[in-house]
Amino acid sequence: MKTFKLTIEYDGTRFNGWQIQGQNCRTVQAEIERALEKITHKRVRVFASGRTDSGVHAKGQVAHFHAAVRLDLPELLRALNGNLPEDVSIISIKDARKNFHAQFDAKRKTYRYTLLNRIAPPCLERQLCLHIPYKLNLQKMREAALILQGRHDFRAFMASDPAKGKSIIEKDTVRRISHLDIKKKGDFILIDVESNGFLYKMVRNIVGTLLFVGSGKLAPEHVRGILKSKDRNLAGDTAPARGLCLMEVVY
Amino acid sequence: MKTFKLTIEYDGTRFNGWQIQGQNCRTVQAEIERALEKITHKRVRVFASGRTDSGVHAKGQVAHFHAAVRLDLPELLRALNGNLPEDVSIISIKDARKNFHAQFDAKRKTYRYTLLNRIAPPCLERQLCLHIPYKLNLQKMREAALILQGRHDFRAFMASDPAKGKSIIEKDTVRRISHLDIKKKGDFILIDVESNGFLYKMVRNIVGTLLFVGSGKLAPEHVRGILKSKDRNLAGDTAPARGLCLMEVVY
Repeated sequence: MKTFKLTIEYDGTRFNGWQIQGQNCRTVQAEIERALEKITHKRVRVFASGRTDSGVHAKGQVAHFHAAVRLDLPELLRALNGNLPEDVSIISIKDARKNFHAQFDAKRKTYRYTLLNRIAPPCLERQLCLHIPYKLNLQKMREAALILQGRHDFRAFMASDPAKGKSIIEKDTVRRISHLDIKKKGDFILIDVESNGFLYKMVRNIVGTLLFVGSGKLAPEHVRGILKSKDRNLAGDTAPARGLCLMEVVY
Repeated sequence: MKTFKLTIEYDGTRFNGWQIQGQNCRTVQAEIERALEKITHKRVRVFASGRTDSGVHAKGQVAHFHAAVRLDLPELLRALNGNLPEDVSIISIKDARKNFHAQFDAKRKTYRYTLLNRIAPPCLERQLCLHIPYKLNLQKMREAALILQGRHDFRAFMASDPAKGKSIIEKDTVRRISHLDIKKKGDFILIDVESNGFLYKMVRNIVGTLLFVGSGKLAPEHVRGILKSKDRNLAGDTAPARGLCLMEVVY
């Protein structure tokens, strides 16, 4: 038995997220476990750094699994990708120490949220961004981002989805955002958030709030009050999943 | 009657190219003409800077049309995009001088060919690039690109597709490539070709030849001989359409 570490890219568009759910749900985890079963002829459980929601993409999701495999690493990579659909791609596979755990050993993660800020609707990147046809004040958005950066109780930015039940109720809602950068690249606006942990839908709620600031609905300094309030109702709308991508997990 | 200039983005994946063909062919031109007919209640012919082949994308195709429209430009842009499918987007619409012609007035065009150079198959950008899993020698590719740059007879890089008949047989096959740049961006390799005109499948044949050079099948200096030979059979394979994107037309 050896422990393997995977780095995974996926197009979340046609997935019900990472985590295996019911029979009729297409999930990334199920696709990878199916591929591993074909290769190893055993059921292999795959553990990710964290689940991603329905429609969320990844360029650098990390997962681990334990298996007895005769193939060397390049062969295993080829075999895995050969047994996966076109919307999942294993970028790399490495040997990991025996007790490596993709979730519990993760130190930091970076998510990117992509906006297309122009009048014309998105086209080539339509599955990978949120269309914002109105003008955004980037300077004010950056002011708000600076307030959110650092160690805070982000309870006001945690979704309280009743359908998900108690599993998402976190007692400790303090996290440390080490970077919250807003870059302009042509008509695209890239919002990169690096943190030691993320609450449920935290990035999408932060982006929704930054959009309130960028469109003038909310002054940057009000973000401080939202943080303090710990009240989800004061923060912005949850931005849609398709703009979100898990970029990197650092161990 | 006024003359309008359109800048158009399209995802070529599900199109049989730009130009209207038979009844059962989905083309970008047909979609835009259908949208214009809905808005103006007249048949309007749209003329592009040039046709693009089946599967080829555009970020900056330019076209013109003549019409009598009561809407102002922002309204017309919104009406057009509201009547177009998600894989065509009108980026801008401007008034043009009466005799402006998108094809005959074009001075230069830039195409970009995108390669994904890594072992793992493409995923998020799978419709927009060609996967090259083997190592490429970029320095040698750049040497070959330098040879192709400038004014040459590019007959050896013109496709001779018998199905297309005489229409593609050009007498004057001399063109001037003003830029042929090869950039690395993460695992992507971007090949930008700017020229005063392109022969049929010229960029895709150039890319195929550069791939021969990058993989060591062909020495850079042999590209000089291929140019001189004017023999299509000596140049590389035609690279697939999905990696190609018309980026800009300059007037």
